[in-house]
Amino acid sequence: GGGMWAAGAARRAGLALAAAGALCLALAAWRRRARPLREVLVFPSPPSCTEALLAEAAGPGAAARPCHCPLPHGDCPLSRLLRHLLTARRSLDICLFAFSSPQLGRAVRLLHRRGVRVRIVTDAQYMGVQGSQIGRLRQAGIQVRHDQESGYMHHKFAVVDGRMLITGSLNWTTQAIQNNRENVLVTEDVEYVKPFLDEFERIWEKYNPIKYKFF
Amino acid sequence: GGGMWAAGAARRAGLALAAAGALCLALAAWRRRARPLREVLVFPSPPSCTEALLAEAAGPGAAARPCHCPLPHGDCPLSRLLRHLLTARRSLDICLFAFSSPQLGRAVRLLHRRGVRVRIVTDAQYMGVQGSQIGRLRQAGIQVRHDQESGYMHHKFAVVDGRMLITGSLNWTTQAIQNNRENVLVTEDVEYVKPFLDEFERIWEKYNPIKYKFF
Repeated sequence: GGGMWAAGAARRAGLALAAAGALCLALAAWRRRARPLREVLVFPSPPSCTEALLAEAAGPGAAARPCHCPLPHGDCPLSRLLRHLLTARRSLDICLFAFSSPQLGRAVRLLHRRGVRVRIVTDAQYMGVQGSQIGRLRQAGIQVRHDQESGYMHHKFAVVDGRMLITGSLNWTTQAIQNNRENVLVTEDVEYVKPFLDEFERIWEKYNPIKYKFF
Repeated sequence: GGGMWAAGAARRAGLALAAAGALCLALAAWRRRARPLREVLVFPSPPSCTEALLAEAAGPGAAARPCHCPLPHGDCPLSRLLRHLLTARRSLDICLFAFSSPQLGRAVRLLHRRGVRVRIVTDAQYMGVQGSQIGRLRQAGIQVRHDQESGYMHHKFAVVDGRMLITGSLNWTTQAIQNNRENVLVTEDVEYVKPFLDEFERIWEKYNPIKYKFF
């Protein structure tokens, strides 16, 4: 009787432990899912060299050539922004009032060459100004659409692989990156990513060239 | 014997139920804490009347006077932005490149009169343009500080009660609200709110008038 009772108690204890373990695993998974990437970048970004970062992203083996220019080569808001963009594997949707940064332009062309589907929406008034990257991006074969409205297309966001939102006050210009006080929020929270993706698709369709009225 | 056994089983069952109940309450509290406010507002906002909203916020009883102007009176991105601002009870920290919207200016003066501690940081080049609200806000006794830098103070964010962050591409101007494509992200996630609060305090101290060099 005593042995059977002890065996029963041991079995019950084992079941309780297993249940507790399963609960802990479920909670850990929940906590992981509840903790996606969340980052805030603050600009201006100090002048720094992004050559090695971009060269490494351009092709394997290139990482072996460190850059010897006199600029600092450490982490900075611009290099963090570039790294996040360069994680793109399938798609990159960009919606920007102004785009003239050579480094960010190079990163986007590099992703296009890698086979990432890049789409760009920009402001009609700004895209033709001197230094704009839009011409070079179009020449590289990247699809660009622009507004035909009196108001500005004033968004400054990008969505990487439909998963990561990069948004804030920052236009992708060297002036803004190096001289202005700016913010960029990077998030994988679906509650933020989804409305921006929806806005991108809405604008992309609205600005379809077949709808342009040349005035 | 049977009666005591039954009483013991009932007590054990009661304890198990109590434990399960406590666990459920704890999980619900965790879930609540893990689900702070998360909202994305997309502009342009259709023309709409915010008179009733602002009158109601100005004083008790005012809510009884509905506005009869011909504009729509329903919910819109501007009214949602105003409602979020008007939840302020203790503090409102505003960091804006451009501030000329009369409705938003009125909401901020109203909060100041209510005893909310309002602080504003803005861009020196923009604050003097025609239609800027900065003069009226200063006349109302609200503290305003501005940059003395060559780059722009290009942020567009506000923090309500150190708890809710309102940030995006939107300057607080009627042009931007009614005509531009813009976004505003509203969040209570500490990971986003904290870096913006830190940035505000850094800039607020940096722009302390005792440090102004008049050039």
